[in-house]
Amino acid sequence: MRLSVLLFDGFTALDVVGGYEVLANVPGMEVEFAAQTVGLVTADTRRLALHAYRTFDDVRHTDILYVPGGPGVAAALNDTALLQTIARLHASSTWTFGVCNGVELLGAAGLLAGRTVTTNWFARDRVAAWGAQVGTQRYQRDGKLLTAAGVSASIDAALYLAACLGGDALAETLQLGIEYYPAPPLNCGSPDLASPRAQELVRAFETHGAKRIAALKAPF
Amino acid sequence: MRLSVLLFDGFTALDVVGGYEVLANVPGMEVEFAAQTVGLVTADTRRLALHAYRTFDDVRHTDILYVPGGPGVAAALNDTALLQTIARLHASSTWTFGVCNGVELLGAAGLLAGRTVTTNWFARDRVAAWGAQVGTQRYQRDGKLLTAAGVSASIDAALYLAACLGGDALAETLQLGIEYYPAPPLNCGSPDLASPRAQELVRAFETHGAKRIAALKAPF
Repeated sequence: MRLSVLLFDGFTALDVVGGYEVLANVPGMEVEFAAQTVGLVTADTRRLALHAYRTFDDVRHTDILYVPGGPGVAAALNDTALLQTIARLHASSTWTFGVCNGVELLGAAGLLAGRTVTTNWFARDRVAAWGAQVGTQRYQRDGKLLTAAGVSASIDAALYLAACLGGDALAETLQLGIEYYPAPPLNCGSPDLASPRAQELVRAFETHGAKRIAALKAPF
Repeated sequence: MRLSVLLFDGFTALDVVGGYEVLANVPGMEVEFAAQTVGLVTADTRRLALHAYRTFDDVRHTDILYVPGGPGVAAALNDTALLQTIARLHASSTWTFGVCNGVELLGAAGLLAGRTVTTNWFARDRVAAWGAQVGTQRYQRDGKLLTAAGVSASIDAALYLAACLGGDALAETLQLGIEYYPAPPLNCGSPDLASPRAQELVRAFETHGAKRIAALKAPF
């Protein structure tokens, strides 16, 4: 079984690695990282870079199409090669897995009309504009479409997918493998219950995300 | 403030990215990825690679020394350059942050005698052999030494560190930024409460970790 992670400039690393760390350890899973061209793809902080060793064109078919989010989504919404790759691979995927505001890219690729999804807390309106029913769940399945809320929700969604693929015992084993018995030091209700000040700060940070990453130079 | 993540062959990606994603977004944080040589460093799956753009020698001082774990730790325990770098940077760090069985590397670097730490569930005995008191906490602070349990515990530990650095309001904002309101689909007590079958499988997997990664070829 093949898991293809599509990378684009300005992705958020935990959007990728949260789900990858679970799914890459499913027995028999073949993981690949693909981008428009082979080489380093730089994350939103401009300090972390992942190596894409396949081009979009190299990937003719995949079982699990994985689309992360990040501040780079704003520019990626105009990236025809990326959107066409998403639409093309979704046509024959067994699962299509969108994380965080990467779910917007699924919308731009024409996948979301009438579908029920979740997404990053701050991206709900934008995802709804693609015709989706947007909930507040940590992860949401609608047929073969699996969507995760923001960033770290990729872990929970991937464990859910692992249980779909191989049963609860597999998912429990993978959960132990990544020791996912979370104990955040602070309040842990839901994004909607975060303090107004935190909500304001994160919204401001994300609103200027594209400008912010454009202003940062990678030191490599 | 500088965060220096030390990479070595066969690290586990979520050990790195869990803590990085929290700490890189602390205002004013300068993140760097260092390894013995500049270039790609391949994770345990042999499918993911991170770019190290500093050498160990390039890093003369850091504020937060970050040491991940992974199946590569078995070989890294004999990597003198890595161990000397850990000891050297720890001497003047403000914080030293060990994740998962990366805590064994802190032991091998001579940092753990008489210290109270946590580590990956399966590595407790090996860490105790370096003279540490090893608990079962998700994260543990002893002076400037902060240790995290396995893999995903790097997120919880980093949120704790963020609260130490900038207060609870900062940590809450970062928590919202990565939308860390975990909801694992299955049981979520503690590693020690995982099913005997899952414990047996993960122990077997980890026992052969070094051999397993040696047998996998990266496709790049």
